[in-house]
Amino acid sequence: MPIGAIEQHGPHLPMSVDAVIAEETSNALLDQVGEEIDLWLLPTMSISKSNEHTWSSGTLSYTTTTMLSVLDDVARCVATTSARRLVLLNGHGGNTSLLITACRDIRVAHGLLTFLVHPSLPPASGGTSTVEELGMGIHGGLNETSVFSYLRPGEVQMEKAVRRVPEWMAENDWVKFGGKVQFGWTSRDFGPEGLIGDPTDANPELGKELFESAVESLAGQLREISNFDFQEN
Amino acid sequence: MPIGAIEQHGPHLPMSVDAVIAEETSNALLDQVGEEIDLWLLPTMSISKSNEHTWSSGTLSYTTTTMLSVLDDVARCVATTSARRLVLLNGHGGNTSLLITACRDIRVAHGLLTFLVHPSLPPASGGTSTVEELGMGIHGGLNETSVFSYLRPGEVQMEKAVRRVPEWMAENDWVKFGGKVQFGWTSRDFGPEGLIGDPTDANPELGKELFESAVESLAGQLREISNFDFQEN
Amino acid sequence: MPIGAIEQHGPHLPMSVDAVIAEETSNALLDQVGEEIDLWLLPTMSISKSNEHTWSSGTLSYTTTTMLSVLDDVARCVATTSARRLVLLNGHGGNTSLLITACRDIRVAHGLLTFLVHPSLPPASGGTSTVEELGMGIHGGLNETSVFSYLRPGEVQMEKAVRRVPEWMAENDWVKFGGKVQFGWTSRDFGPEGLIGDPTDANPELGKELFESAVESLAGQLREISNFDFQEN
Amino acid sequence: MPIGAIEQHGPHLPMSVDAVIAEETSNALLDQVGEEIDLWLLPTMSISKSNEHTWSSGTLSYTTTTMLSVLDDVARCVATTSARRLVLLNGHGGNTSLLITACRDIRVAHGLLTFLVHPSLPPASGGTSTVEELGMGIHGGLNETSVFSYLRPGEVQMEKAVRRVPEWMAENDWVKFGGKVQFGWTSRDFGPEGLIGDPTDANPELGKELFESAVESLAGQLREISNFDFQEN
Amino acid sequence: MPIGAIEQHGPHLPMSVDAVIAEETSNALLDQVGEEIDLWLLPTMSISKSNEHTWSSGTLSYTTTTMLSVLDDVARCVATTSARRLVLLNGHGGNTSLLITACRDIRVAHGLLTFLVHPSLPPASGGTSTVEELGMGIHGGLNETSVFSYLRPGEVQMEKAVRRVPEWMAENDWVKFGGKVQFGWTSRDFGPEGLIGDPTDANPELGKELFESAVESLAGQLREISNFDFQEN
Amino acid sequence: MPIGAIEQHGPHLPMSVDAVIAEETSNALLDQVGEEIDLWLLPTMSISKSNEHTWSSGTLSYTTTTMLSVLDDVARCVATTSARRLVLLNGHGGNTSLLITACRDIRVAHGLLTFLVHPSLPPASGGTSTVEELGMGIHGGLNETSVFSYLRPGEVQMEKAVRRVPEWMAENDWVKFGGKVQFGWTSRDFGPEGLIGDPTDANPELGKELFESAVESLAGQLREISNFDFQEN
Repeated sequence: MPIGAIEQHGPHLPMSVDAVIAEETSNALLDQVGEEIDLWLLPTMSISKSNEHTWSSGTLSYTTTTMLSVLDDVARCVATTSARRLVLLNGHGGNTSLLITACRDIRVAHGLLTFLVHPSLPPASGGTSTVEELGMGIHGGLNETSVFSYLRPGEVQMEKAVRRVPEWMAENDWVKFGGKVQFGWTSRDFGPEGLIGDPTDANPELGKELFESAVESLAGQLREISNFDFQEN
Repeated sequence: MPIGAIEQHGPHLPMSVDAVIAEETSNALLDQVGEEIDLWLLPTMSISKSNEHTWSSGTLSYTTTTMLSVLDDVARCVATTSARRLVLLNGHGGNTSLLITACRDIRVAHGLLTFLVHPSLPPASGGTSTVEELGMGIHGGLNETSVFSYLRPGEVQMEKAVRRVPEWMAENDWVKFGGKVQFGWTSRDFGPEGLIGDPTDANPELGKELFESAVESLAGQLREISNFDFQEN
Repeated sequence: MPIGAIEQHGPHLPMSVDAVIAEETSNALLDQVGEEIDLWLLPTMSISKSNEHTWSSGTLSYTTTTMLSVLDDVARCVATTSARRLVLLNGHGGNTSLLITACRDIRVAHGLLTFLVHPSLPPASGGTSTVEELGMGIHGGLNETSVFSYLRPGEVQMEKAVRRVPEWMAENDWVKFGGKVQFGWTSRDFGPEGLIGDPTDANPELGKELFESAVESLAGQLREISNFDFQEN
Repeated sequence: MPIGAIEQHGPHLPMSVDAVIAEETSNALLDQVGEEIDLWLLPTMSISKSNEHTWSSGTLSYTTTTMLSVLDDVARCVATTSARRLVLLNGHGGNTSLLITACRDIRVAHGLLTFLVHPSLPPASGGTSTVEELGMGIHGGLNETSVFSYLRPGEVQMEKAVRRVPEWMAENDWVKFGGKVQFGWTSRDFGPEGLIGDPTDANPELGKELFESAVESLAGQLREISNFDFQEN
Repeated sequence: MPIGAIEQHGPHLPMSVDAVIAEETSNALLDQVGEEIDLWLLPTMSISKSNEHTWSSGTLSYTTTTMLSVLDDVARCVATTSARRLVLLNGHGGNTSLLITACRDIRVAHGLLTFLVHPSLPPASGGTSTVEELGMGIHGGLNETSVFSYLRPGEVQMEKAVRRVPEWMAENDWVKFGGKVQFGWTSRDFGPEGLIGDPTDANPELGKELFESAVESLAGQLREISNFDFQEN
Repeated sequence: MPIGAIEQHGPHLPMSVDAVIAEETSNALLDQVGEEIDLWLLPTMSISKSNEHTWSSGTLSYTTTTMLSVLDDVARCVATTSARRLVLLNGHGGNTSLLITACRDIRVAHGLLTFLVHPSLPPASGGTSTVEELGMGIHGGLNETSVFSYLRPGEVQMEKAVRRVPEWMAENDWVKFGGKVQFGWTSRDFGPEGLIGDPTDANPELGKELFESAVESLAGQLREISNFDFQEN
């Protein structure tokens, strides 16, 4: 199940970035391993939880309880089929923690084996980000902009791309993206443009590379998932 | 706000492990930096979300929506005081993802600066675990048992301690604790004892060391938090 | 906002029928009148309320409260933009009554002007159905199968199409589709195949005709909507 | 189960109109066919969903979720009796769509056969309205005022009756009461008096006629309902 | 606002007892002091919370959350009128604690002055019960049966009246009706007849006396309420 | 299960009064009868429903629905153990009515025998209050202040203690604490200090006496509870 988002991504990107990436990645995976591992594609959840961006008009966001209900409804229905594994492919970092919670809740409530995978992990969850971005290219930065410009070349306005890296945060020992202390934030907390990262060098070639390596990696992940089952020790 | 859990921890530990660790750590922090940074202690939330352990009679667990309501109620009330920062000190790994979600939701709904800290990070979130546990000492293992045996010497039954490390999982590339693919699980998925790790070498000396270094580290985290504020770029 | 459904449609059609029709109709409308009336397309809600079909494994259905939450969340976000009108384009008859309710609730809660339109009205709501279907071609029947076979020629299995018209119901004076007495039903109430109507004569030519005339009619509806505003008497 | 409403009905009528009509109609039906078809009368739900009128002080309205809960609770209890059919007799047009939804949800959740009947259908749902009202006598108009003046002669203030027919709407092709496009509205959208229709010619004689013919028709509907059951094709 | 109940009352009484008593008492009060203190009658809430009787088929009960929603909806609407005081007249002892809770919640949420009055207090809340009933005539006993037989003479089947007084409970020091320890119970806990008390001597003369003295007392209560307002000390 | 509160108690007492009293009383009971009657102590619910005090910054309060959810979650888990009786020991009068409701709901939903006990009953529920307080020492008055000053000698600021007895209320016949008419109130309704009673003569000796007699009485209550079971008549 691809999970996207409809949310502001800074002045240079449209609202649909995460939905597009999640859907295109899923389609590529279906092509690549669909037959091999009997993979079924659920409809893309285009809108998800984006309340860190609702200050910006046009962002569409579910509340936490709405999103939990949506996932529970879908999982309950999936559990009536012969499928035993439900994979959530998450294109929006703001969903990650809620989806981990949902993976457990669905496992307990409906018995499915549940998995959460990502086209690209945000740096705060173990993904990579360039030195130029000080490890903080988490929203509308180099990687995401590159991937989207590869997938939807006509929909990026690179002339509006600006660098917005919270350099002051890099000096912190604990409270920072990827630091030991997690913190609540909205994209408005970092400035009026709503992006966090440096998209100015983004390009479709890098995007192609990132996209293809993500699909390659995810194909491997899905293969392992298709054989995964718990074993008692 | 210390957040514990009342849940089974294997045959050698009582239900109260996480609540005790969260509360004792918080008390130690109040002693150490309470005056310095004007720290206030909220009541311990002893029961939290432990549905990965509810198969084991005696575990007390809130549902996801109950826990979100509890946190929202507390935060709404805190926001009427002069406090601007709310720190959740989480002693139960099973809460982590939900608390990250709550940190954001509280920031958006009530305007507080919110933070999540841990006495000990589970390996899957960047904490450490010994080679003997193959990085999977996540519930009732060496570290947790040691810390608890230091804090409550009379309440551990070391003679019942058994090694339960899911060695089969270590062979996976992706689907494992700390792997790139997150997955829903209950402690029953790994066997009837309900622990994951190897507590057999646990001892209060190690526990003392871990506890004191956690407090030391958390004191530093709280100092940084007390000065933290967002800056626009 | 196109609203589809993922639900069984009898043995000859896939689960995606309503989602495809809602989305394709919306795309055609965007092409035809998008510029003229400043129409914006929201993401398709592929899954909606299909609990009359959940007896059939594979159907994905939101509960009533989930669906109300989803619609309220989206509308609340839309109301923060400069848009003043929200049009729900509904491809699934089972949603109709709930969407009428939502139109009012959104108008009251968020102030938007709200509208509900349909690619094809079910006979019970004023649409047409052939004499052969006794006015009861409401699910997987002649019209719907024809439209879908035009839009997705490769995805219909006409050899599995069967006639399932509840002839006994036509004899009723009041309790019937389009009768004065409305009644709660599931598609299983009419037999194990899950369709209600007669798709055996369905063909893409009829489908094309129906689709194009629906788009034509809806274009007119959207033009009128774009100028609609309430007037006090 | 009679379902009324407590809501403003324009300057000439009291709040109780819909509750009175639903209850009186039900009582008349109990007299006429109660024995014959073993009809049981549930308590009148006097207050229901009237949020299109809450701008007018004194209107009492349930929210959508409250009303769904009320109906679900009642149906769950009814399902523990030997009754197999639950008939909702709805005196308030603003409830219609929600009650259709509830009929389905109750059928699925509790297994009862569910039916929705009306003392008088609003024109938008297939009922009649005079030419003078341009088919828009939907709230406090000729018919409703006449019926109420027959049932409660002392409670109508005909001297305050005014004509409020949205003539501008009659010119629309699609967006109008009974048109193909449904729309969200409040009674305040049409002016400060809160009625829609023309009660100025209302009289108890017409009311008697309408009431008696409604009871006659409903008696037939109930007879058919009492024998109704689904048949597989 | 009269609040009744539709619930089993033992073999000799119909389901409607509490609804009838609440409504008749309210009507009598309207007659007696309506003009004097500008009293307005809200519709009777016939169904309320009767889950201690849902084991008995035919009882209609709201859940706790449904009932809280209903009361909150009504109070929110009343608060938009010029009324400043909302009085709940409760005919069903099983509602008492929930209504006290609601009185506070409505005061806090909507600002109304809220009051709870009773036609007859159950012994456990300070009412009286005869020696023969050992102070436990709380459901279908002497007083209630007498009042109902006065109000609806034809609807009592005295020949089915039986004495069901839990004599074993009278020996308790703490855990009993009116004792210091409150306890959760269902009427089935005391036997299959579902009544608690001794109706065998019930008669309409006693009922008349009780009813009239209740109305007299409540008239005084309403007079005091109509002048009540908080004063700061 | 001890149930406290974190709420303002007037200028002379800290927020924690009810939580401390509930917990200390429970600990003393565990010492006194724990072995004898196989009593198990659940974690203290420190925060509960205190919305009558949320006007005063620092009070932490659950909403009614949050608190019902918390209690239901705990009870559902307890019901999976071998325990058959659940006792709520309530230190905060503002919870009483909600806990009575919960006792019933838990009995019906989870089958446990449920009981509600109090360290000290408020006068309005049958407890005692001195003549000087006119029977209205219900919040921060003589008894409560005395008990707390005995349990936490260093945490009372007697120099800030003031008398705030609503003398005007004592003149009422019906609407008063302990009167026949219950009413919704907040502590702010009685003045800005937030207490109701007269703590000026409070002293630890009286507190010791009250505490010890409460424990003595509760020990007897728990003994009776441990043997309590329903009997059919």
